[in-house]
Amino acid sequence: MDHLQRLSFTSDYMEGAHPAILRRLLETNLEKTPGYGLDPFSESAREKIRAACRVPDAAVWFLAGGTQTNAVMIDAFLRPWQGVISAESGHISTHEAGAIEFGGHKVLALPHRNGKISAEQIRACAAAWQQDANREHMVMPGMVYLSHPTEYGTLYSLRELQEISEVCRAFQIPLYLDGARLAYALSCPENDVTLPDLGRLCDAFYIGGTKCGALYGEAVVIPDGKALPHLFTLIKQHGALLAKGRITGLQFDVLFTDGLYETIGRPAIEAAARIRSALAEKGIPLAVPSPTNQIFLLLDPARAEALSEKVEMSFMERTDDGRLLMRIATGWATTPEDTERLIACL
Amino acid sequence: MDHLQRLSFTSDYMEGAHPAILRRLLETNLEKTPGYGLDPFSESAREKIRAACRVPDAAVWFLAGGTQTNAVMIDAFLRPWQGVISAESGHISTHEAGAIEFGGHKVLALPHRNGKISAEQIRACAAAWQQDANREHMVMPGMVYLSHPTEYGTLYSLRELQEISEVCRAFQIPLYLDGARLAYALSCPENDVTLPDLGRLCDAFYIGGTKCGALYGEAVVIPDGKALPHLFTLIKQHGALLAKGRITGLQFDVLFTDGLYETIGRPAIEAAARIRSALAEKGIPLAVPSPTNQIFLLLDPARAEALSEKVEMSFMERTDDGRLLMRIATGWATTPEDTERLIACL
Amino acid sequence: MDHLQRLSFTSDYMEGAHPAILRRLLETNLEKTPGYGLDPFSESAREKIRAACRVPDAAVWFLAGGTQTNAVMIDAFLRPWQGVISAESGHISTHEAGAIEFGGHKVLALPHRNGKISAEQIRACAAAWQQDANREHMVMPGMVYLSHPTEYGTLYSLRELQEISEVCRAFQIPLYLDGARLAYALSCPENDVTLPDLGRLCDAFYIGGTKCGALYGEAVVIPDGKALPHLFTLIKQHGALLAKGRITGLQFDVLFTDGLYETIGRPAIEAAARIRSALAEKGIPLAVPSPTNQIFLLLDPARAEALSEKVEMSFMERTDDGRLLMRIATGWATTPEDTERLIACL
Amino acid sequence: MDHLQRLSFTSDYMEGAHPAILRRLLETNLEKTPGYGLDPFSESAREKIRAACRVPDAAVWFLAGGTQTNAVMIDAFLRPWQGVISAESGHISTHEAGAIEFGGHKVLALPHRNGKISAEQIRACAAAWQQDANREHMVMPGMVYLSHPTEYGTLYSLRELQEISEVCRAFQIPLYLDGARLAYALSCPENDVTLPDLGRLCDAFYIGGTKCGALYGEAVVIPDGKALPHLFTLIKQHGALLAKGRITGLQFDVLFTDGLYETIGRPAIEAAARIRSALAEKGIPLAVPSPTNQIFLLLDPARAEALSEKVEMSFMERTDDGRLLMRIATGWATTPEDTERLIACL
Repeated sequence: MDHLQRLSFTSDYMEGAHPAILRRLLETNLEKTPGYGLDPFSESAREKIRAACRVPDAAVWFLAGGTQTNAVMIDAFLRPWQGVISAESGHISTHEAGAIEFGGHKVLALPHRNGKISAEQIRACAAAWQQDANREHMVMPGMVYLSHPTEYGTLYSLRELQEISEVCRAFQIPLYLDGARLAYALSCPENDVTLPDLGRLCDAFYIGGTKCGALYGEAVVIPDGKALPHLFTLIKQHGALLAKGRITGLQFDVLFTDGLYETIGRPAIEAAARIRSALAEKGIPLAVPSPTNQIFLLLDPARAEALSEKVEMSFMERTDDGRLLMRIATGWATTPEDTERLIACL
Repeated sequence: MDHLQRLSFTSDYMEGAHPAILRRLLETNLEKTPGYGLDPFSESAREKIRAACRVPDAAVWFLAGGTQTNAVMIDAFLRPWQGVISAESGHISTHEAGAIEFGGHKVLALPHRNGKISAEQIRACAAAWQQDANREHMVMPGMVYLSHPTEYGTLYSLRELQEISEVCRAFQIPLYLDGARLAYALSCPENDVTLPDLGRLCDAFYIGGTKCGALYGEAVVIPDGKALPHLFTLIKQHGALLAKGRITGLQFDVLFTDGLYETIGRPAIEAAARIRSALAEKGIPLAVPSPTNQIFLLLDPARAEALSEKVEMSFMERTDDGRLLMRIATGWATTPEDTERLIACL
Repeated sequence: MDHLQRLSFTSDYMEGAHPAILRRLLETNLEKTPGYGLDPFSESAREKIRAACRVPDAAVWFLAGGTQTNAVMIDAFLRPWQGVISAESGHISTHEAGAIEFGGHKVLALPHRNGKISAEQIRACAAAWQQDANREHMVMPGMVYLSHPTEYGTLYSLRELQEISEVCRAFQIPLYLDGARLAYALSCPENDVTLPDLGRLCDAFYIGGTKCGALYGEAVVIPDGKALPHLFTLIKQHGALLAKGRITGLQFDVLFTDGLYETIGRPAIEAAARIRSALAEKGIPLAVPSPTNQIFLLLDPARAEALSEKVEMSFMERTDDGRLLMRIATGWATTPEDTERLIACL
Repeated sequence: MDHLQRLSFTSDYMEGAHPAILRRLLETNLEKTPGYGLDPFSESAREKIRAACRVPDAAVWFLAGGTQTNAVMIDAFLRPWQGVISAESGHISTHEAGAIEFGGHKVLALPHRNGKISAEQIRACAAAWQQDANREHMVMPGMVYLSHPTEYGTLYSLRELQEISEVCRAFQIPLYLDGARLAYALSCPENDVTLPDLGRLCDAFYIGGTKCGALYGEAVVIPDGKALPHLFTLIKQHGALLAKGRITGLQFDVLFTDGLYETIGRPAIEAAARIRSALAEKGIPLAVPSPTNQIFLLLDPARAEALSEKVEMSFMERTDDGRLLMRIATGWATTPEDTERLIACL
């Protein structure tokens, strides 16, 4: 089949799970446990995540996917008259098929710079609402959504995140961070934001599993464990509560054993660095200076066609000057062999 | 731990997955496939399900859980001014935390008989709306929801299902069937409804995985594959689209290989039959004449307490005469040993 | 036209407005005022309503119609995981086209007795949720909806209302009362519930204008004026904020001048009493013992047909024994002449 | 009171209604009619509107206000996976408190030019979705929202509207036009879009009453009267169905008698022209070249403060260069005397 014959660098969710996860699933398969996340595997995972993030009182929930997690958490934090601030390029603003609006909330989209928004933009947005004579006719900014790494593979610095957190707290607006690809930040040398930083600076964030070595699943961390009462019911109402919750819990238990989550992204980061070097050597320009596992490159049409015959990539858009913006994504399962074969194709 | 020491018959989702599923996950773990269900495992599963249900043109979708599946399908079939007819005891009416209402739709609840509603009730409900002078001020019945087996473990006969299907078609109301525990019907001698019958009589139904041997997952079958355009986007909007869709597809591919799904429930049915015989011998009355894997028994408080020390069951409610209505659930993974130990405790 | 030739007793919203309202509209027509209810007419009406209900700190809002008011207030009080307790016969449960579910909330319908529910039913419903092991999978009772008079024209006694209020407060569940036809209660000798009683016992209630002499409009009273922050925005979001809010405010200003609202229903009550006497004399049975302006009578088909040729009534339903349940509604504008003509037709 | 002493030019909804409306309300006050818009006044208004717009088969509905009308119509045209294209400055995008999102739909906001968007922008937006490989993960453009006059008082030319209509039809996307201030377009010499043009080019539009001489109310026109089945119920579900619908119908009956609606805006347009001339003479710059009843002027802070002592205007925003953007709105009830007094204050 085509997808087996060509090299494939289209995404970081093309394989199954880290072998340690499958191993543990096998070992524990016929143990009997209660449902809905009330099992010892989930509880163990919660404890390990609380420890890793240094948030001993945190509530930790396991959900199935990113859009679902964002929709639930945004619905949990916002009141009906509030909306969520996001970069225009944020996943909730572009590629969630209106899941936030389905829940009744407006996405208040701000211009982005390489996928990021700034503390100053957030401050200005919140202040503009406060000062607008018509603010009662408008959606109130009630939450901030960031992704880290962003949809463009870029990273917030610790300083940027601190400033954003300060603004949010000054305006009493919860800060929520989408860590769908968080493992790729944690394994990236350019990253200086740690799990405890997230625990300290965010009101909620999720640790991505689906794109970071799990079969599926995301772990939501809410440092103030009492902030969101009745969240169990809200999760159920969103169709996001899995009866066999232990399967998700067990996966995070493995990912947070012996620091696996903080290193699982390394092969992806190393492969991406090799590829970026090779692109630079070949004079192929990058569209975004992203240090993580997503590489956005600009190709003229002929070269794009030639390369696409050998390597599956994601087409993003045609630029105004006629070039093609393509994405190469490496992942936790990317092998050095595939990376070298890709480089040979360039 | 308590749940390991006591015998446990609380539900049919206490273990992991059928070993054949884990085996196949291991074998295919590092293959690369596209996301969102566009992979060959999902496609193979779809073909096998279409064949098993004799609906060659059906659309088949894989979702994560039952509440999610119900919410998506009801939202897909109904227009905003319509509601869904259900037994009062239907899962959507009682135990989905308002997921249907979250999607904007009213559940039009009808009185049930052992979890079932009749063609005549549905006809009367639809006709009453048609004949009501105030119908334009009322929610229009726009869909029928059945569960098979029901929440009380009972079964619709083929004849009952045919009559319901006829009424639905006469009123042009789609018929949707929740098969969360469908495997336990298919393995049950009392059942005369086959997968092709569902394919012929329903406008949509789902084949339960979570409670029938999968790690998680439900397969929705829509016999008229063109009935619901843009369903992909609606699924995404509900947060129900898994990036690594192949994991769900693969599980159903295994469940529909060599007829596994149609036999996987047998151990549960055999165990339940053994337990029912034993209860009859001991003179312990059943609350509902259910032939499948759920047994509803009535215990006086002393006996309930004594038994609960040895066997974990589900408490349903206290009856007016002071007895306790308890549920024993067997499952695909129930062993004869555990069954005999349970009987010894009675 | 048909509706002009026959006597018409179909509803209490068949005429325009009390003449005093039109007079005041004319007098003030070209005065300039700010929009959105921030005008002196609305402010004057608020003050008069606060005084009449003895709730000096109440928030008072003016909305356009009953379904809208119910939908806004229920959405304002409930959190997403909560539903509203109502009689099965409650307007929100039957004749609002799913407006409450459109806002995402389930109506928790209880059996009614002549349109009423009891404190004991509410207590049992709230307690059942608290005690249910599966309560986190269920919609939480978060509010109580009553109508007074009810949809069947019946009245809660002060004692019944006190008991309900006590239960609600014990369970911390807001009590909301729909007073679409409140003027007909206040003018009814059998009624012992005053406006100050409502102010003391309810967490919110609305004083109906549409059916009680206004062109349109309902006045919501929230005794604790700080209970619902951002309600202005929520009202706007529901499409319920009128730019020219003064028109509604002015109408309530007139209705609450010199106690007009408390007497405006008298002609309706007197006419209804006359009609009930006449029905009793003729041996025509009542279906419901309602003391207010709605009369529910049972007619055999021949008599119903004969009477309908001369008098327009509302057909409610055909009873099991083949009789027709019809409604005669009197109103603030019903004249003694029309009443006598109706009686002559019986 | 302040609002009586200062000249007031803050909005076009500061007075009551055109005297002819009040007169007719008085004349017909005690006539009895059926509710919910099924009365002869509403029917007469519908016929007159159909004739004026040359849409003999149109459905015509009367609603209470603009946000409500927009929310209902957008919900009526869109399926759940679709959003509505609007100028960023569109009322639905900015000042409706998230009413569209409350209904579950995303507003797809495009950059505006003086409040307007172009056919080319709409084409590009619809085509971009069609061509995006990820379109199934995105909100589908399902409708276009225009306002005429726009929120900045500007007008679409007939040619612009024709081009937009062509694009919409090519993409099978309904075109909906918000005519909250339509009377001010129809009375404006620069306007070349007639009611029959709207009837021919739009899939739905509303004729504003609230800001154009009614007590309240908007008239929705849907040229293809069968386009939106069950709209009555949807209107009810949105809380937008008035029991005493005749009051709205009667007002439009008056507004569409003897062409009143097409001339009612003249005093406003003449006053605005006088004021613009005076501003030009005084060298006070306009921020937007709007030809209708809204004038957007730029004042330095000192002048703004001085003028505000004598004339109430709307403050819009502070520009980057420190000036104040203010709005003067004239209306159907603006008198030449007030206009001259305003000019004298400049």
